[in-house]
Amino acid sequence: MEKPVIALAMGDPCGISPELTAKVVALDEVRKVARVVVIGDRRVYDEGAKVAGISAAPQEFVDLKHLDPATIKRGVASKAGGASALANYRQALRMVADGKASAVCFTPFNKQAMRLADASYDDEIGFTAGVLGFKGVATEFNILEGLWNARVTSHIPLSKVAASLTIDRIVEGLELTAAALRAAGFEPPRIGVAALNPHAGDGGNFGREEIDIIEPAVKKAKAKGLPADGPYPADTVFVRAKAGQFDAVLTMYHDQGQIAMKLLGFDRGVTLLGGFPFPICTPAHGTAYDIAGKGVANIGATKAALLLAAQMAQRQATIRT
Amino acid sequence: MEKPVIALAMGDPCGISPELTAKVVALDEVRKVARVVVIGDRRVYDEGAKVAGISAAPQEFVDLKHLDPATIKRGVASKAGGASALANYRQALRMVADGKASAVCFTPFNKQAMRLADASYDDEIGFTAGVLGFKGVATEFNILEGLWNARVTSHIPLSKVAASLTIDRIVEGLELTAAALRAAGFEPPRIGVAALNPHAGDGGNFGREEIDIIEPAVKKAKAKGLPADGPYPADTVFVRAKAGQFDAVLTMYHDQGQIAMKLLGFDRGVTLLGGFPFPICTPAHGTAYDIAGKGVANIGATKAALLLAAQMAQRQATIRT
Repeated sequence: MEKPVIALAMGDPCGISPELTAKVVALDEVRKVARVVVIGDRRVYDEGAKVAGISAAPQEFVDLKHLDPATIKRGVASKAGGASALANYRQALRMVADGKASAVCFTPFNKQAMRLADASYDDEIGFTAGVLGFKGVATEFNILEGLWNARVTSHIPLSKVAASLTIDRIVEGLELTAAALRAAGFEPPRIGVAALNPHAGDGGNFGREEIDIIEPAVKKAKAKGLPADGPYPADTVFVRAKAGQFDAVLTMYHDQGQIAMKLLGFDRGVTLLGGFPFPICTPAHGTAYDIAGKGVANIGATKAALLLAAQMAQRQATIRT
Repeated sequence: MEKPVIALAMGDPCGISPELTAKVVALDEVRKVARVVVIGDRRVYDEGAKVAGISAAPQEFVDLKHLDPATIKRGVASKAGGASALANYRQALRMVADGKASAVCFTPFNKQAMRLADASYDDEIGFTAGVLGFKGVATEFNILEGLWNARVTSHIPLSKVAASLTIDRIVEGLELTAAALRAAGFEPPRIGVAALNPHAGDGGNFGREEIDIIEPAVKKAKAKGLPADGPYPADTVFVRAKAGQFDAVLTMYHDQGQIAMKLLGFDRGVTLLGGFPFPICTPAHGTAYDIAGKGVANIGATKAALLLAAQMAQRQATIRT
């Protein structure tokens, strides 16, 4: 069986992304399951390899020759750094769109640098949809070891969360989550749904969204054959998931999931952009400007991102065959 | 130095409370630091002692003779059970109010049973305030090992949280938390304050409560000499606390703290009712009807509740002397 091709975009050049890139493509564990094509400036890569103490060359490299590392400063967000990361990522997406790769990974971006380079830059999902001309629904999954988290609402004020919930949005979230889990090999997937209010509303005493929106959404999803269980009080659904009852938790708002995932050690985890026609994975942690260039960055999350992308790409190929 | 007297009210008789009561008063660790007066029906206690395999008699027992255990069923919430727990607790509170004890503990209540016995029963804080004629502000602290959590809002719909936050309520929460921590021996106490919105509002992009309410509250609290640090994003404040940066986290709403505390293992923790003139402690877990009478209930949280009450009572006595 042929190994899937992964387009690996180098992230922000001022943090740990260059050393992570060099480290991850040298790993036997990664080489065994994927053909990784690195996209970036070779000079930035070579500096990263030096920091990481890696002498093995990458299998393949697309050199965009757009950033002389002498022009940027380690540990400082810069327009040039953001522009290079955006260019690498755009190129990686196009490689898959053109059929030359089957999944995308990227090492950490720095949002401030991205915005210096492109003031209209909002987040990876919006940017990706723009590059691909994608009109569907995409969402972010946070994955820590076997536990996935997706959310119905994200970067909005807490005061707007309740009014933003609808039966259809929750069903849509369940559809995306079930599809992504299946694409990663969970069969059948098990999804726990978080309630919105304390004690899941205590029968309507502390809010009616469970009764009026979330329970009907779970019922509708089940009628469509989707795996959905809940709603469970938010303060117990992750305890259940941690104990192995669910593969994924669908939360109603950002912090509901993030409080749990970060406490469980999500910095070691992976973020997957789901809903797009192919998997896009990145380590959950950031650019770690404070330790950039020291060669101490932990490769665990980046490796996990690559392995997840390879696994999903391989599965997709198998299904198509 | 004289040992403080703790009034220990027996909780719901249909769950694990009787066995926990018998177990905890037999512990050397507890007897060493407190004179524990158990309040309940002696027949219920004796059944609990039998289940727990405890032959040592309690040091002191106030027998209310109000509940024949033959009239109730293990594992089923009952009006008689709720009424007995309420009577025990009322008596314990009065003992301290009358100067005959210096702190109260209780083994787990069953809210459903309490409500069967008293339809107006809302929660422990309201009931306690009623019995004591207390007009001040009280709050619940959740304590797991060295980590405390208090919240500004509690059993209200999530949609009402943002509008319920005021500078004064947050300052009041910080005052209560600092006082309770000091009463337990934290000097100086360190309190982390959670933000409300994702990414602490991202500079106002996802909500303005941090800028308009929480930051001014922290500033006002500091000006009053209170320990307060933040606001920190809710998904990182507990990671910081877990790493030892804070003794307590003040959260803005119920699940913000409970998601974290339950994941950290709060079932092993203690709930303290703070703000009253004396400490009131109880294990954080419930009545565990499913394992009642089997003699397998873990005594850890109940022991921790007794020890915290004893420590706070001892400290209070020392300060008064």
